[in-house]
Amino acid sequence: MSFSPLLQQLINALRCLPGVGPKSAQRMALHLLERERDNARQLAGALLQAVEQIGECQQCRTLSETPVCDICSDSERDAGLVCVLESPVDLLAIEQSGGFQGVYFVLKGHLSPIDGIGPEDLGIPQLLDRIEQGGIRELILATNPTVEGEATAHYITGQIAREDIRITRIAHGVPVGGELEFVDGGTLAHALAGRRVINRDVS
Amino acid sequence: MSFSPLLQQLINALRCLPGVGPKSAQRMALHLLERERDNARQLAGALLQAVEQIGECQQCRTLSETPVCDICSDSERDAGLVCVLESPVDLLAIEQSGGFQGVYFVLKGHLSPIDGIGPEDLGIPQLLDRIEQGGIRELILATNPTVEGEATAHYITGQIAREDIRITRIAHGVPVGGELEFVDGGTLAHALAGRRVINRDVS
Repeated sequence: MSFSPLLQQLINALRCLPGVGPKSAQRMALHLLERERDNARQLAGALLQAVEQIGECQQCRTLSETPVCDICSDSERDAGLVCVLESPVDLLAIEQSGGFQGVYFVLKGHLSPIDGIGPEDLGIPQLLDRIEQGGIRELILATNPTVEGEATAHYITGQIAREDIRITRIAHGVPVGGELEFVDGGTLAHALAGRRVINRDVS
Repeated sequence: MSFSPLLQQLINALRCLPGVGPKSAQRMALHLLERERDNARQLAGALLQAVEQIGECQQCRTLSETPVCDICSDSERDAGLVCVLESPVDLLAIEQSGGFQGVYFVLKGHLSPIDGIGPEDLGIPQLLDRIEQGGIRELILATNPTVEGEATAHYITGQIAREDIRITRIAHGVPVGGELEFVDGGTLAHALAGRRVINRDVS
């Protein structure tokens, strides 16, 4: 059975969505055509508007429809505390956790010489310029705890000449609410190595 | 944390897709904007084209971009054998099983007085007209094995005056490849009630 050409085109197009395979795409296409034609039109409009108008923040490189994003232009945020992330998704995750009052710098990826992704593609020179200009007290490297993320954090650390900046890496360990039994070995090893004294003040 | 207005608009619009909740919509929106802008544009185009140009087949009411769908206009299909379905998705499922050579009639729903869905909304008068015109040997009622689907099948049966038409209902029973242990009681009861002799010819 082949679908009609337009239906097949819609099914193929829906497969660009993450986590959508051939079966889900088919279900989505039929659902939209059967019951949600108005919403499908709205979705098309929202996609076009977002693609045309959302660019990146000049300062932190996250997705933004204004030249400087809301966070970078918020005077109540601590511009001396910069958290370096791999992706805008990570930025949202941290914002939603609600515990961070600094600003961000989004690399949009990690170093990957095999794929031809070097420091320039990640905006690292731009980050280093910002650091050179002064005003940053602490740089939190919150790249992913993967080989590539660690390598990227390591590279950035090596490039920073100023000695008045604290460079930190987010803690790796057992997730809060998780059970040790289900935590992988690498994480457990990190959690043990990164153990903290809790019965007296430590610096 | 609130998203920028355009991003929020895209996330909301994506939620019209079946099975997509707030978290998936967020992931999809960011994925499209970060890595798949060209595909997002194509998806918008495919949505608009599909919504504008895909209508329904005049004969069987399934989704079609031509006045009469490929199946209804295929002279090799047996127009005397009509399978009545609730939705175009069911039509695709049967076509993909590859075992059916007849044609279809798609109700697009089931009788549901509570929601104000009566026979006219399901095109039942149109189906009865087609039956009155003659040429149909067998009508297979393949509405879903739910209370509403059964009621719809029952209603259609009651409306057919001609006695030269065989009216059949698809078999309910244990799915092929399934294990009895995991089959629900209702299905098992149907499977037992619908048992067939296998050691001699039966009519």
